[in-house]
Amino acid sequence: MKLYDMELSGNCYKARLFLALIGRKYDRVPVNLKEGEHKKPAYLAINPLGKVPALDDDGTVIRDSQAILVYLARKYGGPKWWPEDAKGQGEIVQWLSFAANEMFHGCAIARAIPKFKRPGDHPAAQAQARAAMEILEGRLGGNDWLALGHPTIADIACYPYAALVWEGGVPLDAYPAVKAWFKRIEALPGYVAMPGIGG
Amino acid sequence: MKLYDMELSGNCYKARLFLALIGRKYDRVPVNLKEGEHKKPAYLAINPLGKVPALDDDGTVIRDSQAILVYLARKYGGPKWWPEDAKGQGEIVQWLSFAANEMFHGCAIARAIPKFKRPGDHPAAQAQARAAMEILEGRLGGNDWLALGHPTIADIACYPYAALVWEGGVPLDAYPAVKAWFKRIEALPGYVAMPGIGG
Repeated sequence: MKLYDMELSGNCYKARLFLALIGRKYDRVPVNLKEGEHKKPAYLAINPLGKVPALDDDGTVIRDSQAILVYLARKYGGPKWWPEDAKGQGEIVQWLSFAANEMFHGCAIARAIPKFKRPGDHPAAQAQARAAMEILEGRLGGNDWLALGHPTIADIACYPYAALVWEGGVPLDAYPAVKAWFKRIEALPGYVAMPGIGG
Repeated sequence: MKLYDMELSGNCYKARLFLALIGRKYDRVPVNLKEGEHKKPAYLAINPLGKVPALDDDGTVIRDSQAILVYLARKYGGPKWWPEDAKGQGEIVQWLSFAANEMFHGCAIARAIPKFKRPGDHPAAQAQARAAMEILEGRLGGNDWLALGHPTIADIACYPYAALVWEGGVPLDAYPAVKAWFKRIEALPGYVAMPGIGG
């Protein structure tokens, strides 16, 4: 199994963290985003969107961090991470969409503008990031986990950019329930960190 | 079954279209976005994100258009719309994330700025919309459907804001393969249109 990866990408980290939690070995294939490798034909043949991560599992190629979590959980992780019933899947996909939409366009972009010199409106992204963090805080105030009462891929999809949002100038102190959830995730067997996160 | 709905929302239309395609009856509960009903406590108790659509299926409440598609397909639509295997689910979730991220932040926002007076950078949203449409065009140039060689919830998730993007000032003429896919979707038994779409 190969993971096309960039160390400082929260989306790539979702895949690395989940692979560690389920104890699957894989080979990292670093993609040099600074050199524009993700927009060159060789990588576009793997992922036409020109984004990381992408997973190649013996010829099955899956792009997109949420899709990789579903694929890995269904194939290797088992139903505790990704259940088989409609209600469970629906509840989790709510948070996968939240990760792709609100978490990414808020928390990830608020971080990327200062950290990677991405163009964009930083105050607007920070406002979106705070709105997303408020949703997490509201949910986690009365629940240990985002869905189903136990750790699932919903948590893995939302954790990285929440834990990295301080790099975008959004302090975590306003979100005590989210910080307590970080600690629960960081205590899971097999947990691995990334630069700027955990510890 | 109740759908919290707004007629001109492409996200709500995903749910209405899929319910029609699988022949499920439901009650529409219109949410008056102009009056801010989606940000009032009664609706926030249903969906804390303050967005439409939301589905209430005999007490099981699912928000988010992609999550609603997964829930309905798993419960009522059957595996042709949403398969049970890892590879099939992974391939489809790629497009659900694409719908939540690139299609929404490109095509839907490019439409919402002129149509609903949403604040935002219209040329930037149009550029993102064109980039998303190019991805669809590339995929559909050699494939009748987005995933698995037949209609799935991937198509239903991406179709609405692609077919509405002309309302955002992005002409469809540049995307002949996408337009041919529209015709295939519109020929599905049970298909229903919405204002600005189909025909």
